Amino acid sequence: MRYEEFTIEGRNAIIEAFRAGKTIDKLFVLDGCHDGPVSTIIREAKKRDTIINYVSKERLDSMSATKKHQGVIAYAAAYEYAEIEDVFKIAEEKGEAPFVIILDNIEDPHNLGAIIRTANLAGAHGVIIPKRRAVGLTATVARTSAGALNYTPVVKVTNISNTIEELKERGMWFVCADMGGEVMYNLDLKGSIGLVVGNEGEGVSRLVKEKCDFIASIPMKGNIDSLNASVAAGVLAYEIVRQRMS
Amino acid sequence: MRYEEFTIEGRNAIIEAFRAGKTIDKLFVLDGCHDGPVSTIIREAKKRDTIINYVSKERLDSMSATKKHQGVIAYAAAYEYAEIEDVFKIAEEKGEAPFVIILDNIEDPHNLGAIIRTANLAGAHGVIIPKRRAVGLTATVARTSAGALNYTPVVKVTNISNTIEELKERGMWFVCADMGGEVMYNLDLKGSIGLVVGNEGEGVSRLVKEKCDFIASIPMKGNIDSLNASVAAGVLAYEIVRQRMS
Repeated sequence: MRYEEFTIEGRNAIIEAFRAGKTIDKLFVLDGCHDGPVSTIIREAKKRDTIINYVSKERLDSMSATKKHQGVIAYAAAYEYAEIEDVFKIAEEKGEAPFVIILDNIEDPHNLGAIIRTANLAGAHGVIIPKRRAVGLTATVARTSAGALNYTPVVKVTNISNTIEELKERGMWFVCADMGGEVMYNLDLKGSIGLVVGNEGEGVSRLVKEKCDFIASIPMKGNIDSLNASVAAGVLAYEIVRQRMS
Repeated sequence: MRYEEFTIEGRNAIIEAFRAGKTIDKLFVLDGCHDGPVSTIIREAKKRDTIINYVSKERLDSMSATKKHQGVIAYAAAYEYAEIEDVFKIAEEKGEAPFVIILDNIEDPHNLGAIIRTANLAGAHGVIIPKRRAVGLTATVARTSAGALNYTPVVKVTNISNTIEELKERGMWFVCADMGGEVMYNLDLKGSIGLVVGNEGEGVSRLVKEKCDFIASIPMKGNIDSLNASVAAGVLAYEIVRQRMS
């Protein structure tokens, strides 16, 4: 994986980025703009399944650093994404049962970076994130991961529920972090496992939760609702480590 | 504890804050400035053991929001600090052996907030932070704690090593988080315990580490050096929870 940059503004720059095969996480297009170059950009984006947002001129202006966006701004991934097969390959090379962390719409880049860092140190073989409504591999994520992005593959998928289904067919079990489940210490978290961590505000979405085999709860002995998402991911990932070591 | 604000600029405002009994975390004074009102402020600060930083005009100007600092800027605590006795009282009321988290120079307000949040949910009875070279209870800390600051007392002490000595005399054991210690799962972390978490970059300082009874290590199975400080604190705090529950 290589470190690259970020926000690309202007028609030619974005067309070039697509032609060079860069991964564009998100594309912002001036609403109602349909001329030739913009249509080319939209066509390229659709071909690659890039998320397209149609926004107002005010929104584009406020996002623009150069003030010369010409109606289009793209967010390129700071790192390249991996494929699911890369994750299985790493597990196989280490002779370990696959262990992945699946993030259901983490929005804060600091949380995503910290979780990738945790995934690396807890010996997870990869991290899976969704294409829509979640932060991608931005420069902030790369920095917060403290280098872990160089080692731990991050896979971006269209639909988390479908991915869980596919991985179940390959023999994996899924545990999601949520309240009202079994206390994590009492669950058997060994073997080929996927840990599902939810969004900062809303937790794991209903559809994803229904696909999981268990719900694991972190004991809550205090007065407030929930741990920070990256702390919760760390506590659960290390319960898996403990059980794998014992 | 009550929620209050933040940066106080100008001579009269700061003198008033001291007179009203507000907790000032840090005072910044224009280097070389010794006139009457400034001397009064410095005297009040020394009386209360407030940290005083003598800085250049450029530094003060860049810190100032009002641009009318008159040579003095104070950082007030967003929350009031508690006393050690408050922590023991909470433990006693719950009929539990005291459990405190001691932070040796955490610098990032998001980490401090997340750790106070974790402390609340892991059932720790309080958090201890040092007066110098560490972040205090700022508005960012309050927000990141997700309300935990309303329940979990935070005590500010002059010297962490001395505090550990005093608490040892009251029957507490101290475990610090660091590499090269015993794997945390193999240590006995029950009973009356203080968990010491170090600075983001440098870990636990040598003097503080020497006071601790054990060094607990989180198993590291990856390629990078260390977990995010708030994640590490969470993983260790929950190992204490697990042992206390078993």
